[in-house]
Amino acid sequence: MTKTAGSLPWMVLNEKMRKFFVLISLIGILNLYAEDGSRLWLPDSYQEQPAVIQTKVKSETVSIAVKELESYWKGAPVKLLKIKDKTLACDGFRIEGDYDSQVTIRAASDIGLLYGAYHLLRLQETENLSQSFKIQEQPAYALRLLNHWDNLDGTIERGYAGYSLWKWKELPETISPRYEQYARANASIGINGTVLNNVNASPDILKTEYLQKVRVIADVFRPYGIKVYLSVNMASPKVLDDLADADPWNPAVIRWWKNKAQEIYRLIPDFGGFLVKANSEGQPGPQDYGRTHADGANLLADVLKPYGGIVMWRAFVYNPDQDDRAKQAYREFVHLDGQFRDNVILQVKNGPVDFQPREPFNPLFGNMSQTPLMPELQITQEYLGFSNHLVFLAPQWKEFFDSDTYCQGEGSTVAQVTNGSIFPHRLTAIAGVANTGEDINWCGHPFAQANWYAFGRLAWDPGLSSDRIADEWLKQTFTKEEAFVAPARSIMLQSWETAVSYMMPLGLHHQFAWGHHYGPEPWCDVPGARPDWLPKYYHQADEEGIGFDRSSSGSNAVAQYFSPLKEQFNSLESCPEKYLLWFHHVPWNYPMKSGRTLWDEMCYHYDAGVQQVREFQKQWDKLEKYVDPERFRLVQSKLRIQAKDAVWWKDACLLYFQTFSNQVIPHEIERPVHELDDLMKIKLDMKHHN
Amino acid sequence: MTKTAGSLPWMVLNEKMRKFFVLISLIGILNLYAEDGSRLWLPDSYQEQPAVIQTKVKSETVSIAVKELESYWKGAPVKLLKIKDKTLACDGFRIEGDYDSQVTIRAASDIGLLYGAYHLLRLQETENLSQSFKIQEQPAYALRLLNHWDNLDGTIERGYAGYSLWKWKELPETISPRYEQYARANASIGINGTVLNNVNASPDILKTEYLQKVRVIADVFRPYGIKVYLSVNMASPKVLDDLADADPWNPAVIRWWKNKAQEIYRLIPDFGGFLVKANSEGQPGPQDYGRTHADGANLLADVLKPYGGIVMWRAFVYNPDQDDRAKQAYREFVHLDGQFRDNVILQVKNGPVDFQPREPFNPLFGNMSQTPLMPELQITQEYLGFSNHLVFLAPQWKEFFDSDTYCQGEGSTVAQVTNGSIFPHRLTAIAGVANTGEDINWCGHPFAQANWYAFGRLAWDPGLSSDRIADEWLKQTFTKEEAFVAPARSIMLQSWETAVSYMMPLGLHHQFAWGHHYGPEPWCDVPGARPDWLPKYYHQADEEGIGFDRSSSGSNAVAQYFSPLKEQFNSLESCPEKYLLWFHHVPWNYPMKSGRTLWDEMCYHYDAGVQQVREFQKQWDKLEKYVDPERFRLVQSKLRIQAKDAVWWKDACLLYFQTFSNQVIPHEIERPVHELDDLMKIKLDMKHHN
Repeated sequence: MTKTAGSLPWMVLNEKMRKFFVLISLIGILNLYAEDGSRLWLPDSYQEQPAVIQTKVKSETVSIAVKELESYWKGAPVKLLKIKDKTLACDGFRIEGDYDSQVTIRAASDIGLLYGAYHLLRLQETENLSQSFKIQEQPAYALRLLNHWDNLDGTIERGYAGYSLWKWKELPETISPRYEQYARANASIGINGTVLNNVNASPDILKTEYLQKVRVIADVFRPYGIKVYLSVNMASPKVLDDLADADPWNPAVIRWWKNKAQEIYRLIPDFGGFLVKANSEGQPGPQDYGRTHADGANLLADVLKPYGGIVMWRAFVYNPDQDDRAKQAYREFVHLDGQFRDNVILQVKNGPVDFQPREPFNPLFGNMSQTPLMPELQITQEYLGFSNHLVFLAPQWKEFFDSDTYCQGEGSTVAQVTNGSIFPHRLTAIAGVANTGEDINWCGHPFAQANWYAFGRLAWDPGLSSDRIADEWLKQTFTKEEAFVAPARSIMLQSWETAVSYMMPLGLHHQFAWGHHYGPEPWCDVPGARPDWLPKYYHQADEEGIGFDRSSSGSNAVAQYFSPLKEQFNSLESCPEKYLLWFHHVPWNYPMKSGRTLWDEMCYHYDAGVQQVREFQKQWDKLEKYVDPERFRLVQSKLRIQAKDAVWWKDACLLYFQTFSNQVIPHEIERPVHELDDLMKIKLDMKHHN
Repeated sequence: MTKTAGSLPWMVLNEKMRKFFVLISLIGILNLYAEDGSRLWLPDSYQEQPAVIQTKVKSETVSIAVKELESYWKGAPVKLLKIKDKTLACDGFRIEGDYDSQVTIRAASDIGLLYGAYHLLRLQETENLSQSFKIQEQPAYALRLLNHWDNLDGTIERGYAGYSLWKWKELPETISPRYEQYARANASIGINGTVLNNVNASPDILKTEYLQKVRVIADVFRPYGIKVYLSVNMASPKVLDDLADADPWNPAVIRWWKNKAQEIYRLIPDFGGFLVKANSEGQPGPQDYGRTHADGANLLADVLKPYGGIVMWRAFVYNPDQDDRAKQAYREFVHLDGQFRDNVILQVKNGPVDFQPREPFNPLFGNMSQTPLMPELQITQEYLGFSNHLVFLAPQWKEFFDSDTYCQGEGSTVAQVTNGSIFPHRLTAIAGVANTGEDINWCGHPFAQANWYAFGRLAWDPGLSSDRIADEWLKQTFTKEEAFVAPARSIMLQSWETAVSYMMPLGLHHQFAWGHHYGPEPWCDVPGARPDWLPKYYHQADEEGIGFDRSSSGSNAVAQYFSPLKEQFNSLESCPEKYLLWFHHVPWNYPMKSGRTLWDEMCYHYDAGVQQVREFQKQWDKLEKYVDPERFRLVQSKLRIQAKDAVWWKDACLLYFQTFSNQVIPHEIERPVHELDDLMKIKLDMKHHN
């Protein structure tokens, strides 16, 4: 690749970057004390006198722990002790002591000491630490990963915070300071791995040229306990080195992967492994050669095994020819249970369709006792207003973790099914699709940072409450003042249900515009499009009613769940109303628990969503005095967009569905302000890459 | 002018007309009983058995009266008697009788009988006529005119209901059936004259070719008692016949006008006269030659006098070089009082600036005892949301008519000053700038018809209440059902104050976008523009406060009013709050009567406007069952636009003025959803011709 040496740096800046620098300059001029959001939730309180920190451990990782504590710990001297203790698993730690006299952090590993240090600082920022305390922590999942859907050209699929953090063109020579900042932020919340590139993977990532760049990033991340992983394209041997095919049974192919693994581990000895999206949405895979997903996964597992690497094989697979997309991951994978190597883990999206505002959990969870499964959550708000809408996702993830699969009777929650407590797999993991980008505030929306934070915290401990996480994040990110924290937390805790209300209440799903997934397009009809990429496939509205019949009289997706869940979902009466239109085609006049008809209930939900966003606006504006002007204005401005969008969603969905229900919107409800015809003409010029 | 004979009619249809025909066809196909609004408020109830109508009067006008009654009167036989009776002025009539036995209409003129017939039909549609009744009516103003700002190319300045009704290209050969429908509608509400062309007049209208077209229209209108008038360009002699100048003292010019008058009256013996906009906004006039407005007006008056014609000379004159535009009409004309011929009448806009949402009355009213003054009202909603916003103007006009000028002590209302009761001029008149166009429903917005109706009714009797007029119009236009009429009337009666609230409360004025006057642009700054065409000239917002200081410490416009009005307006304490920012520059924290500060009060007004429009939406949607689908949907759709526009106005004005007030919008109030920066970028592609 030719370097553009000689051209002025300014000339090669892209639009986003230019904005970034203009912003930087403006902030510099206008307000020296501006809070641009770049700090995230990390400590920044300057102290002249460093704290007293003692340790005998010498390592880069522990040095970071010492430095962080020296810089930001305001309490008694801290001792860091590495000990052997079977009650302390790999990343765990114990903190004992008293804020005013002495504090000791014990861990079995260097990274455990660093996690302990960050935890201590978090406690300082969020709790009253005057009492003596004794804390022991260890993570629920062994691997806690971010997945970056970042392309090698710098775009990010479903990224809404600017271009990629990874500057492939500059690497390996130039190392952006943000790589380390990123590692520090992740370490502070316990994230210990990251998949650098998009699951729709370019084979190029495995070129030596790119691996040398990856090595540099891995080197920066290593002291922070973060391993690097890569998404790989199953056609790589064919594309990169002209092999006849990419059949996992072809010895030449196997040899190719073996050599590639060797090359990688020579550069990056602690390389984490591969993430694979195969035979899904046009990606190549083992089925191209009549092999199974297990065949493909095992090929890679075998070549990585000698080095301790793993394969994360995605279960997000569905075929336009088959019935009900929601059933397909289950159909494709359950029968393969027991056929995977022990260093393969299936990566399963939380719901059976695709990161919708609300989905029931994917029935694969609990149904594959021989195979470790790792949840894939989406931090980036592909289906929840991008970086424009304030939607705190912890409540969504909590609903998922706490869902009872009943696979081993009552109490077999998704969290327990995946974290090794029900099926005792050595390999436990969780992934979140990252919402980061080169925006100065990392995530676009200041409150989107809270979702990154929440993912880390829940990956560590799915038992944490949403309330607690919001509280922690707000105090560290803004201020500890309760007059700010209480109302801001209240906004956060309501925000997900609010978005569900104005977008897709009562189990509706996938009513998004074609291409990008920002606005509503329930009427969407693209000639020749896959039916399961069209909203009509999901809403099934007609004169009788609305909703996808997945009951035993419909697609029978309910049968994929364990009893008594399948019966509960199967019955119109017992199905939770939040999933009603997910599982049933329901008559417009069906009486809901509120006493309203379904149609009226839908109207009330949409309207409640709108009114709640307006309420968030009022609440936020009242907090002006607690927040620096930059972030205050940015959130205010995003809430304005959200308020307009909520009305857009409401009007689009109600006016469109009204053409089927033929019923009036209850007269107490605020009236539409748009015309359906006009809304149907909206074609936003949004790419699904930023 | 060459005829386009031979070209297909479809080919020469303009866009608007095409839509019209498409609409017609659609309505034909979809619903035979569609109400397209073309009927206006006129009777349409078909009766097989014509009513019994007796009269000895033989004239076209009385034939119309007979036909209307035969077709639509459902009561006892009606006698039409022409009598000599000094208590019955020219257009007056008397109706006596009983719905069930016998009704007699008496009048001194044929047109009086026709007006009586329409009045009787109106009573039938709006009252319970079972009792015997005796009614005598005569108009407050002798001349009740529409002014059409229609250009010869078919566009209408400030027209929002399609292109002009007058098909100059087709005339005189083709006579649109709408000419007679128009005449009938006007006659039914007592309008007896119409100025066919724009006050920004093309000299061409006086060409023989055009006069022959005008004659055809006059012939259609005549039986309905409607005289035709023309706007003339004072430069006509120079432009049309190459005279050296158009100096009103130039004998050649005088001769030219004399000849032209002769030509006109030969074609149209009852031609009404001329309307003139001179030396205003770029129009030529007598001041171009050092002559006065009186010189110009008198020249025309002299040439029309032999034929009974009149001159309506507009007082809408203001000069960018002088101080305070609001003072200029007064300064320009008061000193000319007594210098005009007795067939000249000064046509004065209701307010001193220009048809703003709310203005105090123009101080010329009451200040020119020797000169008849005719109010010019604006029916077309140039400054009130075009044909998109539902704004019933009767309350605005009532506020104007009922304003006390104090010119002869208390009780000298504008109505009395202009209708001949205080200054006993023979010539009394009133004009309304028409809101009609070729739209199938005449006025664009179904409720805009009510303003045409209200103008006619108030020109006849300014004592009628807004409530009564709304009630009459609703019953004739929609249905008599009280369940419909009461809430619809309530919307109408609130609508003007509502629009004032979301556009320009508390005396603010002229905050409109450049060019068109639809949306808000209080920040507008066009390089090189006349200062008095820019909103800043009017709002004068700064860090201290907002408003135009017209008190004795400012421009002293208050001095143009009689005592005690001038003192009342001059004092911040006694100035009515509705005119506060018209007359005063008021500090942001000034305590208002509500107890709020000025800034907060402004915020509450804007918000109240928004909430009220939303309430109109709810009210209207509840009325669906009483209204035909076409008009229901159209009004619903217009209200949606209005609701969005109200938010636009609120956000634009509050966010912009906030940059001066530096105060928060009270937190109880719904927050803005727009960014000021975005709003400042809006440049609507609207011409001020349709």
